[in-house]
Amino acid sequence: MVTVSFKEKIKGIGGDASYEAKARVLREQLEAKIPAGLKLPPAILEDPPLDITHIPETCGLLTAQELAITELDATAVCQKIAAGELTAVEAVTAFGKRAAIAHQLTACLMDFFLDEGIKQAQQLDEYFQKEGKVIGPLHGLPISVKGHYPLKGTVGCGGFLVNMETSTEDCDMTSILRSLGAVFYVKTNQPQSLMHLESKSTYGRALNPHNTNLTSGGSSGGESALVAMKGSCMGLGTDGGGSIRGPSAHCGIYGIRPSSRTTPTHGLLWYQHGQDGVIPSTGPMCRSARDMRLFLEAVLEANPALRDPDVLPIPLKVPDLTQKKLRVGIMMHDGVVMPHPPTIRALNLVKAKLEASSEVEVVDYVPYDHDRGYSIVRELYYEDGGATVRRLLEEGGEEMDPLTEWVISPPHVKNHDAAQVWKLRDRRDNFRREYSDHWWSQNVDVVVCPPFQGTASPHDTTKYWSYTAIWNLLDYPGAVFPTGLVADPAIDVYQESPSPMSAADEYNISLYDAAIFKGAPVSLQTVSRRFNDGLVLAAQDVIERILKS
Amino acid sequence: MVTVSFKEKIKGIGGDASYEAKARVLREQLEAKIPAGLKLPPAILEDPPLDITHIPETCGLLTAQELAITELDATAVCQKIAAGELTAVEAVTAFGKRAAIAHQLTACLMDFFLDEGIKQAQQLDEYFQKEGKVIGPLHGLPISVKGHYPLKGTVGCGGFLVNMETSTEDCDMTSILRSLGAVFYVKTNQPQSLMHLESKSTYGRALNPHNTNLTSGGSSGGESALVAMKGSCMGLGTDGGGSIRGPSAHCGIYGIRPSSRTTPTHGLLWYQHGQDGVIPSTGPMCRSARDMRLFLEAVLEANPALRDPDVLPIPLKVPDLTQKKLRVGIMMHDGVVMPHPPTIRALNLVKAKLEASSEVEVVDYVPYDHDRGYSIVRELYYEDGGATVRRLLEEGGEEMDPLTEWVISPPHVKNHDAAQVWKLRDRRDNFRREYSDHWWSQNVDVVVCPPFQGTASPHDTTKYWSYTAIWNLLDYPGAVFPTGLVADPAIDVYQESPSPMSAADEYNISLYDAAIFKGAPVSLQTVSRRFNDGLVLAAQDVIERILKS
Repeated sequence: MVTVSFKEKIKGIGGDASYEAKARVLREQLEAKIPAGLKLPPAILEDPPLDITHIPETCGLLTAQELAITELDATAVCQKIAAGELTAVEAVTAFGKRAAIAHQLTACLMDFFLDEGIKQAQQLDEYFQKEGKVIGPLHGLPISVKGHYPLKGTVGCGGFLVNMETSTEDCDMTSILRSLGAVFYVKTNQPQSLMHLESKSTYGRALNPHNTNLTSGGSSGGESALVAMKGSCMGLGTDGGGSIRGPSAHCGIYGIRPSSRTTPTHGLLWYQHGQDGVIPSTGPMCRSARDMRLFLEAVLEANPALRDPDVLPIPLKVPDLTQKKLRVGIMMHDGVVMPHPPTIRALNLVKAKLEASSEVEVVDYVPYDHDRGYSIVRELYYEDGGATVRRLLEEGGEEMDPLTEWVISPPHVKNHDAAQVWKLRDRRDNFRREYSDHWWSQNVDVVVCPPFQGTASPHDTTKYWSYTAIWNLLDYPGAVFPTGLVADPAIDVYQESPSPMSAADEYNISLYDAAIFKGAPVSLQTVSRRFNDGLVLAAQDVIERILKS
Repeated sequence: MVTVSFKEKIKGIGGDASYEAKARVLREQLEAKIPAGLKLPPAILEDPPLDITHIPETCGLLTAQELAITELDATAVCQKIAAGELTAVEAVTAFGKRAAIAHQLTACLMDFFLDEGIKQAQQLDEYFQKEGKVIGPLHGLPISVKGHYPLKGTVGCGGFLVNMETSTEDCDMTSILRSLGAVFYVKTNQPQSLMHLESKSTYGRALNPHNTNLTSGGSSGGESALVAMKGSCMGLGTDGGGSIRGPSAHCGIYGIRPSSRTTPTHGLLWYQHGQDGVIPSTGPMCRSARDMRLFLEAVLEANPALRDPDVLPIPLKVPDLTQKKLRVGIMMHDGVVMPHPPTIRALNLVKAKLEASSEVEVVDYVPYDHDRGYSIVRELYYEDGGATVRRLLEEGGEEMDPLTEWVISPPHVKNHDAAQVWKLRDRRDNFRREYSDHWWSQNVDVVVCPPFQGTASPHDTTKYWSYTAIWNLLDYPGAVFPTGLVADPAIDVYQESPSPMSAADEYNISLYDAAIFKGAPVSLQTVSRRFNDGLVLAAQDVIERILKS
């Protein structure tokens, strides 16, 4: 492994002279928004340690009170504000300051507007003082927002420099959150094309705070880095192939991809509008399981289907699992790529713990033709053979990231005419039906599986997303959670030389060197059948409690 | 108007020698299944009157008891069977015999298997006698099934001779209905391509029983003719552009197009699988408003989403309208094509009656850019420019029906590549959003509007479906009901020479000659926002009651 300097590591996407000129302006504008008083000393940034999670505490830029506030999860922030123990201004100030620090270490932001956030928070505090009650369930909660959500007055883009904008309106999601009392203060970084599990853009490359040689994931990789740095307790992600779950898993935080079209997606910045073969979801990335529920209950309670005829008015029903014995399928691997040793260790642990519990019944879940499913979903992402991506890069003079090139390349990706689009979607529908039959044959309520074929990857190497994307194709909701384990070079070694199951597996094996992954959080994913989002939440609580007991 | 013989009128689609040979076999097979004792005397078929609805009563082939049974609606049939006052065998025998008669007069069938139905009914009767209870909510109910629903052992097709099959399995819908106790005895006729509002196929042209110079509508036009002839009290239709509502309205029966994907569609015979720009619905065609509810409640109660991951688990909620004042928008026309005088008369009547009622509030509903919506939906039907249709006709040596040619012709229809498919679907999504905003601005709960730009049309003339297809594009549920009025040459005349609003309007005006439409039922449509299917049912009851009071 070649050692690169921190400055080199965090560097973003380049381009031709015209691109570089525009990119410089954008980066300088962001730079200028971060107050001088929140700049880290150059010495820290010259050669920070691989694990940078503790720098906010040790750098001296935050007060003890601010550090304490940023330790809270979203539920606690809301509760304390509602109880009058914390003001909205205090909350956003603490998280905003910490976000500024996080950004310098992880390139997690694309816009910073703490002043605006404080103004919003002041109004909420005034309302609270005057009315003696909160304006909504998220009153005063600072929420960080992924780059491609329009938020009035802030910078956003649909994955390329060429579609960068300063938004004139909120989209449905940010508008609803605002009406519920949320406070906005940052927009977060995301990858070129929005279709990688690594987040490198004009604004830099987002780094994994637990080990900056690893990716924070993508495409909501600015969010995952920020939340893991505790510069936010509630981040807004999107997930069309794993973009909430991948980065959350990589950074050791919580994230859920709800069933598509149950949460608002209208207005997202994007470059293939009308591409409806796989519908992305919107959801929370956060630091506790209860915060996922807080977010989903608040947003669905606001009835987004009234604004958006594409939203499905399917309520979130979180079942009471004390009344039945949960059947948990354990999927050790997908039959295509074997996860790396740390993930296998976590799977073995969760299996042993669950088997020892009388609360659940454990089943060995057999995956159903995930290879075929992954081929279908990759073909669906770019039915035009990637022509639109190439055009946007050319128009912006923007260099193609190697992972962008990979994602639009044959054999998975090809150009289609209308009849070929239909045939592809028919293959999708048939796969969904077959998978549904298979699911019932396995007789499980939920499946616990890897969220990825290992922990976070070294930069520029993430080329297999099937552990998340398969569920996007099926539209099965999934949540990830940290197991509490981290990759440990002393124990996470192959017991015997692995025999590859596929070319993708061979590649994955070649990436593994226990030393490289040191300190990476090991996460797991809980999945259930379409629209069983509430069951995912309830089961995740049970599974995590048993695992950690 | 040229007078054509009855034999000529009822004749089906032709083709080359190879087609004709196969078509003859199919027609003869159907012919042979109808028992000699149910054949109408040649004298009747030589030159029947335009209104043939009374022939089943007068032809002498049905007993008084059979005639009485076929007067019942589905709810009454189910109730009587459940009360032991009627057997399943008696029910299917009566409807089956009447269906055989109806077919000879309207070409409404494509398969006839009363013997099988009687066997099924015998088993249900035995169950009832032994267990003292019904097997399900539709125990013993004879249901007629549109041609493209697979039903084990029966003939079906996806709109062309070349995709004719004898089905080896039930599809989801027929399987669910079977499990609820339904009895099958006939499959019904549908048009070439399944995409007209007129039903002419290899099996003949379906005629309107109220006036055989008019179409029974399409594509569920075999069903509408059969139900109007009382050869069925519950028919199974599909609706992707008006194919339940159009024929139901034309024949003076009830029909609802539920919101898409709330009822089972899996397995339907079709020729553009994966074409998911507009999703067809499945629903009932029947003789009372309560039967629509009976059907939907029974089918949704069976939880079709468990079989089919594409089905949305959205329950049917029929609101109690005694607690609120219903706001009814009246849409007199769509801004593109003015309905013919009989329909305007019905709209004026319903408006006056509703305005006079204290139960509802009446609003003049302003349509929103229906012309654009209709263009979008027509383009969505054939994103391949109609190439698949042309290929299937060629493969089968089947003549292209003039209405098939019309539906796949420019300017609406054109070939698309993948990026053009996305653009088109983006136009669809934008229209849906704009329409939703518009709907709220109108402040209505439901809209009452024409189901068509007049009553049933003369054969081969139906070229504008926007009064139904616009709601398919929007996925707004809609039900049609007979007003009790019929076209009356004595009063249904233009008061002054109409000035066309559009080329389509000019064509529609040119079709009108009061004498031609004599006796045609005048129907209306009740529509509400997506997923408000229960509100449509509840409002339809209120509106119809006030109209008919």
